[in-house]
Amino acid sequence: MSKNILVFGGSGALGAEIVNFFTTKGWSTVAIDFRANTVANKSIVITNSGETEMVRVATELNATKFDSIICAAGGWTGGSITSEDYFKSVQKMLDMNLSSAIGTAYLSGKLLSPGGLVVFTGANSALVPTPGMIGYGVSKVATHQIVKSLAQADSGLPANSLSIGILPVILDTPSNRAGMPDSNFDNWTPVSDVASKLFEWSSDSTTRPANGSLVTIETKNKATTFTLV
Amino acid sequence: MSKNILVFGGSGALGAEIVNFFTTKGWSTVAIDFRANTVANKSIVITNSGETEMVRVATELNATKFDSIICAAGGWTGGSITSEDYFKSVQKMLDMNLSSAIGTAYLSGKLLSPGGLVVFTGANSALVPTPGMIGYGVSKVATHQIVKSLAQADSGLPANSLSIGILPVILDTPSNRAGMPDSNFDNWTPVSDVASKLFEWSSDSTTRPANGSLVTIETKNKATTFTLV
Repeated sequence: MSKNILVFGGSGALGAEIVNFFTTKGWSTVAIDFRANTVANKSIVITNSGETEMVRVATELNATKFDSIICAAGGWTGGSITSEDYFKSVQKMLDMNLSSAIGTAYLSGKLLSPGGLVVFTGANSALVPTPGMIGYGVSKVATHQIVKSLAQADSGLPANSLSIGILPVILDTPSNRAGMPDSNFDNWTPVSDVASKLFEWSSDSTTRPANGSLVTIETKNKATTFTLV
Repeated sequence: MSKNILVFGGSGALGAEIVNFFTTKGWSTVAIDFRANTVANKSIVITNSGETEMVRVATELNATKFDSIICAAGGWTGGSITSEDYFKSVQKMLDMNLSSAIGTAYLSGKLLSPGGLVVFTGANSALVPTPGMIGYGVSKVATHQIVKSLAQADSGLPANSLSIGILPVILDTPSNRAGMPDSNFDNWTPVSDVASKLFEWSSDSTTRPANGSLVTIETKNKATTFTLV
């Protein structure tokens, strides 16, 4: 029987790559996003990450248990306390980054298999103060707190499951290229490198970091390293 | 000329005590909250901490610069990922704790005097994982991130200002007593101890912790200690 993966944000640059990678490897894939993913074995389109939609998703997937659940949703926007769009930038980051992590945490409590893996996307840049991007910073430290909280014995995850945060420095995505076209892309992390590492952790439990780990992902001259914070 | 303090959440148990304390000491006090504070020299009633209301407050106070701005707003509710009210508990904590901190940060950028002090209320319990209170934990680590971010040189605060977080273990308030009536209140922190310390920091800059500090507040046998994290 094939293994199952659920990818929250499965139609974004990172999420779609994860769906592609695991599908190619013979896993059964479920993508959840605002728009459909035609590669996934099952694609559920949602309008937001709030309670009603998450309960609907959990109900629709009720018969399925997942070996891996990945939150690949999110985005970036800047904004300091003196920025014209400060409040909007904070709300946008809470909606894009925190709400998806909160939703994924809920689904993990309902749908993760014992011994399963749940991975959230944090941010290396939120390990330090973030005065120029208050909303991004708070949404990502909040995500890191979710990772560490779900790693506790009484978190509500099934027995022997693992909660991990991946903290990219910067991913090589179309939207990041559009925003920073003059960067050296050799120092950006290909989403395939992330998908490959997630596949390794998902397939072979002996390769997994400790429960609650935050793992920085950094690429230099096309070489990607994964480092425990 | 008297010094000025703005207390966000100035009608709550902690905020009202701060207003009382500073008013008694001859400071000019402004309270901002959902209901009026009749002790404060000026009381501004708001309906929420969102952009429209915060811009209105900043406009109304435009002629005033504050020596101290304190965010004393907030509350507590539990909820793990498997709790019946998980999503509601998260939203409640974001609304009560994070939104008030985001609003206070904005007002600090507009209204704090050079050399002034802005203080946010974090939580000692959010220094570790919070599986039984996900919403509270994420809202408070987010608040800690705001404290540290505003301490950076390019944060948008005026020159020589100071951003500090106070992290109570538990405050002795009517709502906490109602929730935990059988506790030993000798180990709860009187809000007057907090107000007194804030007054010390506000009045004498030599007593202040370093910029960006998180300060745990713990009481044992009626003795309260303030400890840098």
